[in-house]
Amino acid sequence: MIRSIIEGTVTNVKGFEVGTATSGIKPSNSADIMVLHSNKDCTAAGMFTTNQVVGAPVELDRITLKDNNTAIRAVVANSGIANACTGDQGFNNATKMQEVASKSLECRPNQILIMSTGIIGPQLPMSKITKGIHNAVNNLNDNGGIDGAKAIMTTDTIPKYFAVNIKLPEGTISIGAIAKGSGMIHPNMATMLGCITTDACIEASRLQSMLKIAVNKSFNKISIDGDTSTSDTVLLLANGSSNISCTEGKNQELFQKGLNQVTAALAKQIVKDGEGVTKFVTIHVSGAPSIEQAHLVANSIATSPLVKTAFAGHDPNWGRIIVAAGKVGVAFDPKLSNLWIGKQTDEIKIFNNGTPSDYNIEIAKEIFSENEFYVHLDLGSGTKEISVWTGDLTTEYVRINSDYTT
Amino acid sequence: MIRSIIEGTVTNVKGFEVGTATSGIKPSNSADIMVLHSNKDCTAAGMFTTNQVVGAPVELDRITLKDNNTAIRAVVANSGIANACTGDQGFNNATKMQEVASKSLECRPNQILIMSTGIIGPQLPMSKITKGIHNAVNNLNDNGGIDGAKAIMTTDTIPKYFAVNIKLPEGTISIGAIAKGSGMIHPNMATMLGCITTDACIEASRLQSMLKIAVNKSFNKISIDGDTSTSDTVLLLANGSSNISCTEGKNQELFQKGLNQVTAALAKQIVKDGEGVTKFVTIHVSGAPSIEQAHLVANSIATSPLVKTAFAGHDPNWGRIIVAAGKVGVAFDPKLSNLWIGKQTDEIKIFNNGTPSDYNIEIAKEIFSENEFYVHLDLGSGTKEISVWTGDLTTEYVRINSDYTT
Repeated sequence: MIRSIIEGTVTNVKGFEVGTATSGIKPSNSADIMVLHSNKDCTAAGMFTTNQVVGAPVELDRITLKDNNTAIRAVVANSGIANACTGDQGFNNATKMQEVASKSLECRPNQILIMSTGIIGPQLPMSKITKGIHNAVNNLNDNGGIDGAKAIMTTDTIPKYFAVNIKLPEGTISIGAIAKGSGMIHPNMATMLGCITTDACIEASRLQSMLKIAVNKSFNKISIDGDTSTSDTVLLLANGSSNISCTEGKNQELFQKGLNQVTAALAKQIVKDGEGVTKFVTIHVSGAPSIEQAHLVANSIATSPLVKTAFAGHDPNWGRIIVAAGKVGVAFDPKLSNLWIGKQTDEIKIFNNGTPSDYNIEIAKEIFSENEFYVHLDLGSGTKEISVWTGDLTTEYVRINSDYTT
Repeated sequence: MIRSIIEGTVTNVKGFEVGTATSGIKPSNSADIMVLHSNKDCTAAGMFTTNQVVGAPVELDRITLKDNNTAIRAVVANSGIANACTGDQGFNNATKMQEVASKSLECRPNQILIMSTGIIGPQLPMSKITKGIHNAVNNLNDNGGIDGAKAIMTTDTIPKYFAVNIKLPEGTISIGAIAKGSGMIHPNMATMLGCITTDACIEASRLQSMLKIAVNKSFNKISIDGDTSTSDTVLLLANGSSNISCTEGKNQELFQKGLNQVTAALAKQIVKDGEGVTKFVTIHVSGAPSIEQAHLVANSIATSPLVKTAFAGHDPNWGRIIVAAGKVGVAFDPKLSNLWIGKQTDEIKIFNNGTPSDYNIEIAKEIFSENEFYVHLDLGSGTKEISVWTGDLTTEYVRINSDYTT
C-alpha cells in the first residue's frame, strides 16, 4: 500500500465536480456560492458544532442526514452570511436553497446538504442566492475544487485543500477535501467548514464513525469540546466510484489513516491562516491524571491571550504558560512540573520541578522567533497526554476583527 | 448615617502610614517598594488567587494569617518581580522580606504580610529589596497613600485608590484602599493586588467573611472563580483606631456597604485601566437556570476576543455575543432569548426571541462607540441573573503584552 499526497481537492476524486458563482452577498464581490456535486449517490457523514446556538443549515443538515445518509448528491454552500440567529425565516431559506439546488441538479431536496458561513443575524438575499446556485450548477466541472475552496472563504487569506491517493492491490482510492476557517484558531472564533470526498465504497454508519475519529485527531485539536461557532460543519461524501470497499479488516484501517492525514493537514492549514497568525505552535501536555484534564490544560495554554501575545512578541515569558496551566482547576503540583520549548520537541528545559532552569535566554528567544515551535509541559501528576495546535495573537488579529461587519 | 466618598487612600484612615522606595527592580527605575504600616495591631483578612500555581508571598501570607490574624502591623509589597515559580529560594526570600521589615518596623516577622507582582520566574534581588524596605520604612508618612498606589503598579497607567467615610452617631469610620491590576481585565491576565485599611474595630473572623462578600461583588465580577494569576491578593486591615465596633446588628451592615463600595470602585478602575482598554461594558445576563450558569455565560461573553474586538471597533456585531453565550455548555433556547444594548440598560432590543429585531443600525453603532455601555442578554430559561464588567480588546493590548519582558 502506498499513500501519496496529491496537489488536489474534492474534485481530484472520481465522480465529483464543483461549480462556483458570484451572487453578490460579499461586499468584495468575490465568489460566494459553491456547489459540490457527485454523479452518483453518496453515503454521507457529518460532524457539527456543539454550540447551543446553531445556524439554520446545521439544523437542516442534521435532519437531512437522519432522513437520508445513503443517497446524498450535493453540498451547496454560501459565504458572506451565516444564516444563524435567523429564526423560522432562516430555516425556510435553508430549505429553499435545497429546493433550488435539487431542481437545478435534478434530484430530491433531501439529497442536498447546505452550509453557510459569514455574518450572524442577517437573512439571506434569496433571489441572489437562487441565481447564484443556478450559475454555479451551470459551471460544474471536474477541475473546480480550488475555486470551490475560494468561494467558501470569509476572512481566510488562502484557499485550503488537500488530497491523498491510497494505492491498493485492487486499485486506487482517493480522498480529497476543501475547508475554510480563520479566526483566532479556535473554531469558536470563526466558522469552520470542511467538505471531504472519496470514491471508496463505505456504508454510512462506518463513514460516520471514521469521520468522528478523524475530526477528533484534527479539527478538535484546535478546539475545545463545546467551544464552537454556530455553523461549524464537516461533511464526508463517499460515492463508491472506485468500486473498492472499506470494511472492518478490509482497507478500513488504511482509509482511516488517509482520512486522518487529510483532516490533520486541513486543521494545520486553518491554524496557519488564523487571523493575524504568524506562528504555528504545538502545545503538548503530558503527565496529566486524565485525557480530559490534559486537554483542559492544553487548551487553556493554547487560548491564553497572554501566552499568545508572548508568542507574537518572540518573548519567552514562560511564566504565562505555567499560569495558564494553573487556572483551569486541574490539580497539579508545580514542584513536580517541567517545561520544555524547542524547534524540535523537548529541545531546552525552561522550568524544572517548580523553579526556572538555568537556560540560555538568547536561545529561548531564538526558538520563540521561529515560525514553528513546540511547547511541552509535563504536569508530573499522571500518565495521560495530548497535543493541540495554536498560533500567536497579533495586532493584525485585532485589526481584522474590529472591522469585520462595518 | 451618611456615607461619603473622599478623595483618599489607605492613609486617609487613622493610624495608617505608607512609605515607598525605588530599589531598582524595574527597568523604568520608578518606585517599586511599598510599606503600609499601622501604629496599632490590626485584625486582618485576606482573599487569594485560586490558581494551582501560587507565588511565594501568597503561600507565606496564608501561613501568616493562619498563625496571626489579630496583630498584623504592616504590608510590604514590591513590583517588578512576582516571586512566583521560584521554588524554595523564592519562599525563603519572601520570609526574608518579612524579617527585614520586622526589624525596621520593630515588630515580629509574623506581623508582616507580603505582596509581590511582576514577572514570573526570576528570583528577587534581595540586597536591593532589603535596602528598599529600609528606605520605604524611613519615609513612612500619613500622606503616602497615592505614592503607595504608584509603587505597586506594573502595566497600570494610573494609580488606583478610593476611600469612604461612614458617619455614625458615635463618630466616623473610614475605609481606604489602593489597588493595582491591569491586563485584559480578568485577573488571570495580570496580577491584581489590593490593600484596604479601616479604623473600625472588627474581629478577624467577621472581617474575613465581610471581605469575602465584598470581593465577590467586585473583583470577582471581573473574574471567574479559578481563573486567576499566581499572585492575586486582597488584604484588609482593621486597626480599631476609631474605637467604633462593627458587630452583627451593630454597624456591620453599614460597614459592609461601605466596603462593597470601595471594592466595587477599585474593580471598575481596574477594568477601565485594563491594558489597551478604551471602553467599560457591563454585561448583564438574566433568565438563567442558576447563578453559576449566569456567571459562566456572562464570563464567556466578557472574555470572548471576538466580542471584545467588536467593542473596540464600535461594531454592533451582536451575533458574536450570542455565539459566546452558546459555547460554554449552558443549555438555553435561542428562540426564548432576548438581547438589549444601550447607554442605559435595555435601551434598544437587538435580538427578539431568536431573530434579529428591526433595530436602527446607526443607533446601535452609536451605542458601541460610547465609552460606557450595557449589554443585557436574557436567556429565557430561568430566573437567575448576574452582571460582570469588561472592556474592549484593542491592538494596544497586543502591543503591550507582546513586549512585556523583552
